[in-house]
Amino acid sequence: MTRLEVFPILGVPEVRPGDDLAGMIVAAADGGDGTALAAGDVVVVTQKVVSKAEGKLEAIDADDPRGHKAIVERESVRILRRRGDLIISETKHGFVCANAGVDLSNVEDGYAALLPDDSDRSARRLRDGIRARAGIDVAVIVSDTFGRVWRRGLTDVAIGCAGIAAVLDLRGTEDALGRELQVTEVAIVDELAGAADLVMGKATGAAAAVVRGVDARWFRRGDVRSEIVRRPEEDLFR
Amino acid sequence: MTRLEVFPILGVPEVRPGDDLAGMIVAAADGGDGTALAAGDVVVVTQKVVSKAEGKLEAIDADDPRGHKAIVERESVRILRRRGDLIISETKHGFVCANAGVDLSNVEDGYAALLPDDSDRSARRLRDGIRARAGIDVAVIVSDTFGRVWRRGLTDVAIGCAGIAAVLDLRGTEDALGRELQVTEVAIVDELAGAADLVMGKATGAAAAVVRGVDARWFRRGDVRSEIVRRPEEDLFR
Repeated sequence: MTRLEVFPILGVPEVRPGDDLAGMIVAAADGGDGTALAAGDVVVVTQKVVSKAEGKLEAIDADDPRGHKAIVERESVRILRRRGDLIISETKHGFVCANAGVDLSNVEDGYAALLPDDSDRSARRLRDGIRARAGIDVAVIVSDTFGRVWRRGLTDVAIGCAGIAAVLDLRGTEDALGRELQVTEVAIVDELAGAADLVMGKATGAAAAVVRGVDARWFRRGDVRSEIVRRPEEDLFR
Repeated sequence: MTRLEVFPILGVPEVRPGDDLAGMIVAAADGGDGTALAAGDVVVVTQKVVSKAEGKLEAIDADDPRGHKAIVERESVRILRRRGDLIISETKHGFVCANAGVDLSNVEDGYAALLPDDSDRSARRLRDGIRARAGIDVAVIVSDTFGRVWRRGLTDVAIGCAGIAAVLDLRGTEDALGRELQVTEVAIVDELAGAADLVMGKATGAAAAVVRGVDARWFRRGDVRSEIVRRPEEDLFR
Protein backbone atom coordinates (compact mmCIF):
# COMPACT_ATOMS: atom_id res chain seq x y z
CA MET A 1 0.00 0.00 0.00
CA THR A 2 1.22 3.45 -0.84
CA ARG A 3 1.92 5.32 2.35
CA LEU A 4 3.57 8.73 2.25
CA GLU A 5 5.41 10.52 5.00
CA VAL A 6 5.82 14.28 4.79
CA PHE A 7 8.15 16.15 7.11
CA PRO A 8 10.05 19.44 7.12
CA ILE A 9 13.80 19.83 6.95
CA LEU A 10 14.45 22.14 9.87
CA GLY A 11 17.58 24.06 10.69
CA VAL A 12 18.78 25.12 7.27
CA PRO A 13 20.77 28.28 8.15
CA GLU A 14 20.03 31.62 6.49
CA VAL A 15 21.05 31.18 2.85
CA ARG A 16 23.33 33.70 1.14
CA PRO A 17 24.36 34.12 -2.49
CA GLY A 18 26.84 31.46 -3.53
CA ASP A 19 26.01 29.11 -0.66
CA ASP A 20 26.08 25.35 -1.26
CA LEU A 21 22.34 24.86 -0.80
CA ALA A 22 22.42 21.11 -1.57
CA GLY A 23 25.05 20.62 1.10
CA MET A 24 23.12 22.71 3.61
CA ILE A 25 19.96 20.66 2.99
CA VAL A 26 21.79 17.32 3.31
CA ALA A 27 23.40 18.48 6.56
CA ALA A 28 20.18 19.87 8.04
CA ALA A 29 18.16 16.78 7.12
CA ASP A 30 20.60 14.53 8.92
CA GLY A 31 19.20 15.28 12.35
CA GLY A 32 19.88 11.78 13.60
CA ASP A 33 16.19 10.99 14.14
CA GLY A 34 15.38 9.22 10.92
CA THR A 35 15.13 12.38 8.91
CA ALA A 36 18.31 11.87 6.90
CA LEU A 37 17.59 11.88 3.19
CA ALA A 38 17.07 8.47 1.61
CA ALA A 39 17.06 7.24 -1.98
CA GLY A 40 13.64 7.81 -3.55
CA ASP A 41 12.77 10.80 -1.39
CA VAL A 42 11.17 13.80 -3.03
CA VAL A 43 12.91 16.91 -1.66
CA VAL A 44 10.78 20.03 -2.00
CA VAL A 45 12.79 23.25 -1.73
CA THR A 46 11.17 26.67 -1.53
CA GLN A 47 11.92 29.15 -4.28
CA LYS A 48 13.04 31.70 -1.72
CA VAL A 49 16.17 29.84 -0.65
CA VAL A 50 16.94 28.75 -4.21
CA SER A 51 16.78 32.38 -5.34
CA LYS A 52 18.97 33.46 -2.41
CA ALA A 53 21.60 30.81 -3.12
CA GLU A 54 21.62 31.81 -6.78
CA GLY A 55 21.98 35.49 -5.91
CA LYS A 56 18.61 36.44 -7.42
CA LEU A 57 18.25 39.31 -4.94
CA GLU A 58 17.86 42.93 -5.82
CA ALA A 59 18.31 45.97 -3.63
CA ILE A 60 15.05 47.85 -3.11
CA ASP A 61 14.04 50.92 -1.14
CA ALA A 62 11.50 49.49 1.31
CA ASP A 63 10.01 52.95 1.87
CA ASP A 64 9.23 53.42 -1.82
CA PRO A 65 6.56 51.02 -3.18
CA ARG A 66 7.39 52.20 -6.70
CA GLY A 67 10.67 50.28 -6.45
CA HIS A 68 8.88 46.97 -6.04
CA LYS A 69 6.45 47.83 -8.80
CA ALA A 70 9.23 48.73 -11.20
CA ILE A 71 10.94 45.38 -10.64
CA VAL A 72 7.64 43.53 -11.11
CA GLU A 73 7.03 45.28 -14.41
CA ARG A 74 10.54 44.56 -15.62
CA GLU A 75 10.21 40.86 -14.69
CA SER A 76 6.89 40.58 -16.57
CA VAL A 77 6.55 39.85 -20.27
CA ARG A 78 2.84 40.64 -20.18
CA ILE A 79 0.53 42.23 -17.62
CA LEU A 80 -2.85 40.45 -17.42
CA ARG A 81 -4.61 42.38 -14.64
CA ARG A 82 -3.94 45.19 -12.15
CA ARG A 83 -5.85 45.95 -8.98
CA GLY A 84 -4.34 48.41 -6.53
CA ASP A 85 -0.80 47.27 -5.78
CA LEU A 86 -1.46 43.80 -7.17
CA ILE A 87 -0.22 42.94 -10.65
CA ILE A 88 -1.06 39.58 -12.26
CA SER A 89 1.44 38.99 -15.00
CA GLU A 90 3.20 36.43 -17.10
CA THR A 91 6.88 35.93 -16.40
CA LYS A 92 9.54 35.11 -18.98
CA HIS A 93 9.24 31.47 -17.81
CA GLY A 94 5.55 31.44 -18.77
CA PHE A 95 4.29 31.40 -15.18
CA VAL A 96 1.24 33.54 -14.55
CA CYS A 97 1.30 34.76 -10.97
CA ALA A 98 1.05 37.76 -8.68
CA ASN A 99 3.79 40.36 -8.90
CA ALA A 100 5.87 38.22 -11.29
CA GLY A 101 6.98 36.15 -8.31
CA VAL A 102 8.97 39.10 -6.90
CA ASP A 103 8.75 38.75 -3.16
CA LEU A 104 9.69 40.70 -0.07
CA SER A 105 8.80 38.31 2.80
CA ASN A 106 11.48 36.10 4.31
CA VAL A 107 14.04 38.31 2.58
CA GLU A 108 16.34 40.74 4.36
CA ASP A 109 15.10 44.32 4.57
CA GLY A 110 16.15 46.29 1.53
CA TYR A 111 16.06 43.33 -0.86
CA ALA A 112 13.51 41.63 -3.11
CA ALA A 113 13.85 38.00 -4.19
CA LEU A 114 13.28 37.30 -7.88
CA LEU A 115 12.44 33.92 -9.42
CA PRO A 116 15.37 31.74 -10.50
CA ASP A 117 16.27 32.17 -14.18
CA ASP A 118 15.44 28.52 -14.90
CA SER A 119 13.96 26.69 -11.92
CA ASP A 120 14.02 23.28 -13.65
CA ARG A 121 17.76 23.76 -14.02
CA SER A 122 17.92 24.84 -10.37
CA ALA A 123 16.16 21.59 -9.41
CA ARG A 124 18.56 19.52 -11.53
CA ARG A 125 21.56 21.19 -9.90
CA LEU A 126 20.18 20.54 -6.42
CA ARG A 127 19.53 16.91 -7.36
CA ASP A 128 23.10 16.57 -8.66
CA GLY A 129 24.43 18.30 -5.54
CA ILE A 130 22.53 15.97 -3.21
CA ARG A 131 23.78 12.95 -5.14
CA ALA A 132 27.35 14.24 -4.90
CA ARG A 133 27.12 14.89 -1.15
CA ALA A 134 24.87 12.07 0.10
CA GLY A 135 25.43 9.42 -2.58
CA ILE A 136 21.72 8.94 -3.23
CA ASP A 137 19.23 9.71 -5.97
CA VAL A 138 16.35 11.89 -4.87
CA ALA A 139 13.81 13.85 -6.86
CA VAL A 140 13.79 17.62 -6.34
CA ILE A 141 10.93 20.09 -6.66
CA VAL A 142 11.36 23.86 -6.41
CA SER A 143 8.10 25.27 -5.01
CA ASP A 144 6.50 28.67 -4.90
CA THR A 145 3.22 30.06 -3.56
CA PHE A 146 0.67 31.05 -6.19
CA GLY A 147 -2.91 32.27 -6.14
CA ARG A 148 -5.68 30.78 -8.24
CA VAL A 149 -8.19 32.41 -10.50
CA TRP A 150 -11.53 31.30 -9.12
CA ARG A 151 -10.51 30.09 -5.69
CA ARG A 152 -9.43 32.12 -2.70
CA GLY A 153 -6.35 31.25 -0.76
CA LEU A 154 -2.91 30.36 -2.00
CA THR A 155 -1.30 26.98 -2.53
CA ASP A 156 2.25 25.93 -3.18
CA VAL A 157 2.97 24.64 -6.66
CA ALA A 158 6.08 23.46 -8.49
CA ILE A 159 8.07 25.93 -10.56
CA GLY A 160 10.84 23.42 -11.27
CA CYS A 161 11.53 19.73 -10.89
CA ALA A 162 14.18 17.09 -11.52
CA GLY A 163 14.10 13.32 -11.40
CA ILE A 164 10.32 13.10 -11.31
CA ALA A 165 7.51 13.44 -13.84
CA ALA A 166 5.83 16.83 -13.57
CA VAL A 167 2.62 15.44 -15.01
CA LEU A 168 1.56 11.82 -14.79
CA ASP A 169 -0.07 10.68 -18.00
CA LEU A 170 -2.68 8.03 -17.36
CA ARG A 171 -3.92 7.77 -20.94
CA GLY A 172 -4.77 4.21 -21.82
CA THR A 173 -5.34 3.18 -18.21
CA GLU A 174 -8.74 2.13 -17.00
CA ASP A 175 -10.82 3.12 -14.03
CA ALA A 176 -11.96 0.69 -11.32
CA LEU A 177 -14.91 -0.31 -13.50
CA GLY A 178 -12.77 -1.03 -16.55
CA ARG A 179 -13.64 2.14 -18.48
CA GLU A 180 -10.95 4.28 -19.99
CA LEU A 181 -10.15 7.19 -17.68
CA GLN A 182 -11.39 10.66 -18.57
CA VAL A 183 -8.90 12.28 -16.25
CA THR A 184 -5.59 11.52 -17.82
CA GLU A 185 -3.01 14.06 -16.73
CA VAL A 186 -2.31 14.60 -13.06
CA ALA A 187 0.05 17.40 -12.05
CA ILE A 188 1.78 15.35 -9.35
CA VAL A 189 4.57 17.87 -8.74
CA ASP A 190 1.97 20.49 -7.80
CA GLU A 191 0.24 18.07 -5.43
CA LEU A 192 3.63 17.20 -3.91
CA ALA A 193 4.56 20.88 -3.50
CA GLY A 194 1.23 21.51 -1.75
CA ALA A 195 1.73 18.52 0.55
CA ALA A 196 5.17 19.82 1.51
CA ASP A 197 3.74 23.27 2.28
CA LEU A 198 1.48 21.67 4.90
CA VAL A 199 4.53 20.85 7.03
CA MET A 200 6.66 23.88 6.23
CA GLY A 201 4.08 26.51 6.92
CA LYS A 202 4.68 30.08 6.00
CA ALA A 203 5.76 31.14 9.46
CA THR A 204 8.25 28.43 10.46
CA GLY A 205 10.73 29.46 7.82
CA ALA A 206 11.46 25.82 6.99
CA ALA A 207 13.29 25.96 3.70
CA ALA A 208 12.59 22.44 2.52
CA ALA A 209 10.59 19.31 3.19
CA VAL A 210 10.65 15.65 2.27
CA VAL A 211 7.89 13.50 0.81
CA ARG A 212 8.87 9.87 1.34
CA GLY A 213 7.19 6.81 -0.16
CA VAL A 214 6.37 8.13 -3.61
CA ASP A 215 5.66 5.54 -6.32
CA ALA A 216 9.00 4.67 -7.94
CA ARG A 217 7.33 4.62 -11.37
CA TRP A 218 6.98 8.40 -11.16
CA PHE A 219 10.73 8.92 -11.20
CA ARG A 220 11.95 9.94 -14.62
CA ARG A 221 13.33 13.04 -16.26
CA GLY A 222 10.72 15.71 -15.60
CA ASP A 223 10.41 19.38 -16.36
CA VAL A 224 7.83 21.90 -15.16
CA ARG A 225 8.33 24.34 -17.97
CA SER A 226 7.63 21.92 -20.82
CA GLU A 227 5.06 19.76 -19.03
CA ILE A 228 3.04 22.23 -16.95
CA VAL A 229 3.27 25.70 -18.46
CA ARG A 230 0.37 26.00 -20.90
CA ARG A 231 1.28 27.22 -24.31
CA PRO A 232 -0.65 30.42 -25.05
CA GLU A 233 -2.38 28.82 -28.06
CA GLU A 234 -3.95 26.10 -25.89
CA ASP A 235 -4.85 28.46 -23.05
CA LEU A 236 -8.50 29.48 -22.95
CA PHE A 237 -7.87 32.26 -20.43
CA ARG A 238 -5.00 34.38 -21.65
CA MET B 1 7.99 18.39 14.52
CA THR B 2 5.03 18.19 12.20
CA ARG B 3 5.08 14.87 10.42
CA LEU B 4 2.21 13.82 8.21
CA GLU B 5 1.25 10.36 7.10
CA VAL B 6 -0.94 9.95 4.02
CA PHE B 7 -2.50 6.60 3.14
CA PRO B 8 -5.49 5.36 1.14
CA ILE B 9 -8.56 3.68 2.57
CA LEU B 10 -8.79 0.57 0.42
CA GLY B 11 -11.64 -1.84 0.09
CA VAL B 12 -14.64 0.48 0.21
CA PRO B 13 -17.22 -1.57 -1.77
CA GLU B 14 -19.01 -0.12 -4.79
CA VAL B 15 -21.25 2.64 -3.40
CA ARG B 16 -24.96 2.79 -4.28
CA PRO B 17 -27.61 5.42 -3.64
CA GLY B 18 -28.67 5.44 0.00
CA ASP B 19 -25.59 3.57 1.24
CA ASP B 20 -24.14 4.44 4.64
CA LEU B 21 -20.90 5.87 3.27
CA ALA B 22 -19.55 6.90 6.70
CA GLY B 23 -20.05 3.36 7.97
CA MET B 24 -18.43 1.87 4.86
CA ILE B 25 -15.38 4.13 5.29
CA VAL B 26 -15.02 3.33 8.99
CA ALA B 27 -15.27 -0.39 8.26
CA ALA B 28 -12.84 -0.29 5.32
CA ALA B 29 -10.29 1.78 7.22
CA ASP B 30 -10.18 -0.70 10.07
CA GLY B 31 -7.92 -3.10 8.24
CA GLY B 32 -6.20 -4.17 11.43
CA ASP B 33 -2.80 -2.80 10.36
CA GLY B 34 -2.84 0.59 12.00
CA THR B 35 -5.10 2.13 9.41
CA ALA B 36 -8.19 2.43 11.62
CA LEU B 37 -9.35 6.01 11.81
CA ALA B 38 -8.07 8.00 14.79
CA ALA B 39 -9.15 11.27 16.37
CA GLY B 40 -7.59 14.19 14.54
CA ASP B 41 -7.35 12.41 11.21
CA VAL B 42 -8.34 14.28 8.08
CA VAL B 43 -10.47 11.94 5.98
CA VAL B 44 -10.53 12.91 2.31
CA VAL B 45 -13.42 11.40 0.38
CA THR B 46 -13.75 11.63 -3.38
CA GLN B 47 -16.78 13.42 -4.79
CA LYS B 48 -17.64 10.39 -6.88
CA VAL B 49 -18.60 8.14 -3.96
CA VAL B 50 -20.32 11.00 -2.13
CA SER B 51 -22.45 11.69 -5.21
CA LYS B 52 -23.23 7.99 -5.58
CA ALA B 53 -24.27 7.62 -1.92
CA GLU B 54 -26.45 10.72 -2.26
CA GLY B 55 -28.05 9.40 -5.42
CA LYS B 56 -26.68 12.22 -7.59
CA LEU B 57 -26.63 9.94 -10.63
CA GLU B 58 -28.47 10.51 -13.84
CA ALA B 59 -29.21 8.06 -16.63
CA ILE B 60 -27.45 8.97 -19.83
CA ASP B 61 -27.22 7.41 -23.27
CA ALA B 62 -23.52 6.63 -23.56
CA ASP B 63 -23.76 6.49 -27.35
CA ASP B 64 -25.12 10.04 -27.59
CA PRO B 65 -22.63 12.73 -26.54
CA ARG B 66 -25.46 15.29 -26.67
CA GLY B 67 -26.89 13.75 -23.51
CA HIS B 68 -23.78 14.56 -21.50
CA LYS B 69 -23.64 18.04 -22.98
CA ALA B 70 -27.26 18.73 -22.11
CA ILE B 71 -26.70 17.77 -18.47
CA VAL B 72 -23.56 19.93 -18.32
CA GLU B 73 -25.47 22.93 -19.65
CA ARG B 74 -28.32 22.39 -17.21
CA GLU B 75 -25.88 22.11 -14.28
CA SER B 76 -24.14 25.37 -15.28
CA VAL B 77 -25.25 28.83 -14.25
CA ARG B 78 -22.81 30.43 -16.66
CA ILE B 79 -20.65 29.13 -19.51
CA LEU B 80 -17.20 30.73 -19.55
CA ARG B 81 -15.51 28.96 -22.45
CA ARG B 82 -16.17 26.20 -24.97
CA ARG B 83 -13.65 24.25 -26.98
CA GLY B 84 -14.79 21.13 -28.80
CA ASP B 85 -16.56 18.91 -26.29
CA LEU B 86 -15.07 20.81 -23.35
CA ILE B 87 -17.19 23.34 -21.51
CA ILE B 88 -15.72 25.50 -18.73
CA SER B 89 -18.59 26.76 -16.66
CA GLU B 90 -19.65 28.02 -13.29
CA THR B 91 -21.87 25.70 -11.24
CA LYS B 92 -24.64 26.79 -8.90
CA HIS B 93 -22.14 26.28 -6.04
CA GLY B 94 -19.82 28.86 -7.59
CA PHE B 95 -17.20 26.34 -8.68
CA VAL B 96 -15.63 27.01 -12.05
CA CYS B 97 -14.60 23.74 -13.62
CA ALA B 98 -14.77 21.56 -16.70
CA ASN B 99 -18.17 20.16 -17.65
CA ALA B 100 -19.81 21.48 -14.48
CA GLY B 101 -18.27 18.56 -12.58
CA VAL B 102 -20.50 16.08 -14.45
CA ASP B 103 -18.44 12.96 -14.80
CA LEU B 104 -18.63 9.59 -16.54
CA SER B 105 -15.51 7.77 -15.28
CA ASN B 106 -15.76 5.41 -12.31
CA VAL B 107 -19.54 5.47 -12.81
CA GLU B 108 -21.57 2.57 -14.13
CA ASP B 109 -22.26 2.60 -17.87
CA GLY B 110 -25.39 4.54 -18.65
CA TYR B 111 -25.02 6.98 -15.76
CA ALA B 112 -23.36 10.33 -15.13
CA ALA B 113 -22.39 11.50 -11.65
CA LEU B 114 -23.34 15.08 -10.75
CA LEU B 115 -21.82 17.17 -7.97
CA PRO B 116 -23.48 16.95 -4.53
CA ASP B 117 -26.06 19.69 -3.96
CA ASP B 118 -24.05 21.07 -1.04
CA SER B 119 -20.69 19.39 -0.57
CA ASP B 120 -19.92 21.22 2.70
CA ARG B 121 -23.12 19.71 4.09
CA SER B 122 -22.05 16.33 2.66
CA ALA B 123 -18.75 16.68 4.53
CA ARG B 124 -20.53 17.60 7.78
CA ARG B 125 -22.79 14.57 7.47
CA LEU B 126 -19.86 12.27 6.88
CA ARG B 127 -18.09 13.77 9.89
CA ASP B 128 -21.18 13.24 12.04
CA GLY B 129 -21.57 9.71 10.68
CA ILE B 130 -17.96 8.81 11.48
CA ARG B 131 -18.35 10.22 14.99
CA ALA B 132 -21.52 8.17 15.49
CA ARG B 133 -19.92 4.96 14.26
CA ALA B 134 -16.32 5.22 15.48
CA GLY B 135 -16.72 7.55 18.44
CA ILE B 136 -14.02 9.95 17.25
CA ASP B 137 -13.80 13.45 15.83
CA VAL B 138 -12.17 13.63 12.43
CA ALA B 139 -12.11 16.38 9.82
CA VAL B 140 -13.65 15.54 6.45
CA ILE B 141 -12.82 16.91 3.02
CA VAL B 142 -14.83 16.09 -0.12
CA SER B 143 -12.42 16.27 -3.07
CA ASP B 144 -12.76 16.59 -6.80
CA THR B 145 -10.37 16.83 -9.72
CA PHE B 146 -10.16 20.24 -11.39
CA GLY B 147 -8.03 21.76 -14.11
CA ARG B 148 -6.23 25.07 -13.78
CA VAL B 149 -6.17 28.08 -16.02
CA TRP B 150 -2.52 28.59 -16.82
CA ARG B 151 -1.10 25.24 -15.80
CA ARG B 152 -1.49 21.89 -17.53
CA GLY B 153 -2.50 18.82 -15.63
CA LEU B 154 -5.22 18.37 -13.05
CA THR B 155 -5.05 18.40 -9.28
CA ASP B 156 -7.51 17.38 -6.61
CA VAL B 157 -9.05 20.23 -4.64
CA ALA B 158 -11.66 20.47 -1.90
CA ILE B 159 -15.29 21.07 -2.83
CA GLY B 160 -16.50 20.63 0.75
CA CYS B 161 -15.08 20.37 4.24
CA ALA B 162 -16.10 19.94 7.86
CA GLY B 163 -14.19 20.27 11.10
CA ILE B 164 -11.20 22.01 9.52
CA ALA B 165 -10.44 25.51 8.29
CA ALA B 166 -10.68 25.72 4.52
CA VAL B 167 -8.28 28.65 4.46
CA LEU B 168 -5.67 29.35 7.10
CA ASP B 169 -5.42 33.03 7.82
CA LEU B 170 -1.90 34.01 8.84
CA ARG B 171 -2.52 37.75 9.02
CA GLY B 172 -0.60 39.31 11.85
CA THR B 173 1.99 36.55 11.98
CA GLU B 174 5.61 37.21 11.13
CA ASP B 175 8.08 35.50 8.88
CA ALA B 176 11.33 33.93 10.07
CA LEU B 177 13.03 37.35 9.88
CA GLY B 178 10.34 39.08 11.94
CA ARG B 179 8.59 40.86 9.05
CA GLU B 180 4.86 40.66 8.65
CA LEU B 181 3.95 37.94 6.15
CA GLN B 182 2.81 38.95 2.68
CA VAL B 183 1.26 35.56 2.07
CA THR B 184 -1.59 35.43 4.52
CA GLU B 185 -4.22 32.99 3.33
CA VAL B 186 -3.29 29.38 2.63
CA ALA B 187 -5.91 27.07 1.13
CA ILE B 188 -4.98 24.11 3.31
CA VAL B 189 -7.99 21.98 2.31
CA ASP B 190 -6.86 22.13 -1.31
CA GLU B 191 -3.31 21.13 -0.35
CA LEU B 192 -4.73 18.27 1.75
CA ALA B 193 -6.99 17.10 -1.10
CA GLY B 194 -3.99 17.09 -3.44
CA ALA B 195 -1.87 15.15 -0.95
CA ALA B 196 -4.61 12.54 -0.63
CA ASP B 197 -4.82 12.19 -4.41
CA LEU B 198 -1.15 11.15 -4.45
CA VAL B 199 -2.07 7.92 -2.63
CA MET B 200 -5.47 7.30 -4.17
CA GLY B 201 -4.45 7.66 -7.76
CA LYS B 202 -7.01 7.80 -10.49
CA ALA B 203 -6.72 4.14 -11.41
CA THR B 204 -6.84 2.38 -8.02
CA GLY B 205 -10.41 3.42 -7.40
CA ALA B 206 -9.62 4.16 -3.74
CA ALA B 207 -12.60 6.15 -2.55
CA ALA B 208 -10.94 7.87 0.39
CA ALA B 209 -7.64 8.56 2.08
CA VAL B 210 -6.37 9.71 5.46
CA VAL B 211 -3.96 12.52 6.26
CA ARG B 212 -2.73 11.97 9.81
CA GLY B 213 -0.72 14.40 11.94
CA VAL B 214 -2.32 17.67 10.89
CA ASP B 215 -1.82 20.65 13.24
CA ALA B 216 -4.67 20.57 15.78
CA ARG B 217 -4.98 24.37 15.55
CA TRP B 218 -6.41 23.95 12.07
CA PHE B 219 -9.49 22.14 13.36
CA ARG B 220 -12.48 24.44 13.54
CA ARG B 221 -15.73 24.88 11.72
CA GLY B 222 -14.77 25.30 8.09
CA ASP B 223 -16.60 25.71 4.83
CA VAL B 224 -15.32 25.63 1.27
CA ARG B 225 -18.15 27.59 -0.24
CA SER B 226 -17.81 30.67 1.98
CA GLU B 227 -14.03 30.54 2.43
CA ILE B 228 -12.72 29.43 -0.97
CA VAL B 229 -15.24 30.29 -3.67
CA ARG B 230 -14.35 33.75 -4.91
CA ARG B 231 -17.18 36.20 -5.04
CA PRO B 232 -17.58 37.43 -8.63
CA GLU B 233 -16.94 41.05 -7.58
CA GLU B 234 -13.48 40.18 -6.25
CA ASP B 235 -12.61 37.90 -9.15
CA LEU B 236 -10.30 39.43 -11.73
CA PHE B 237 -10.94 36.66 -14.27
CA ARG B 238 -14.68 36.17 -14.58
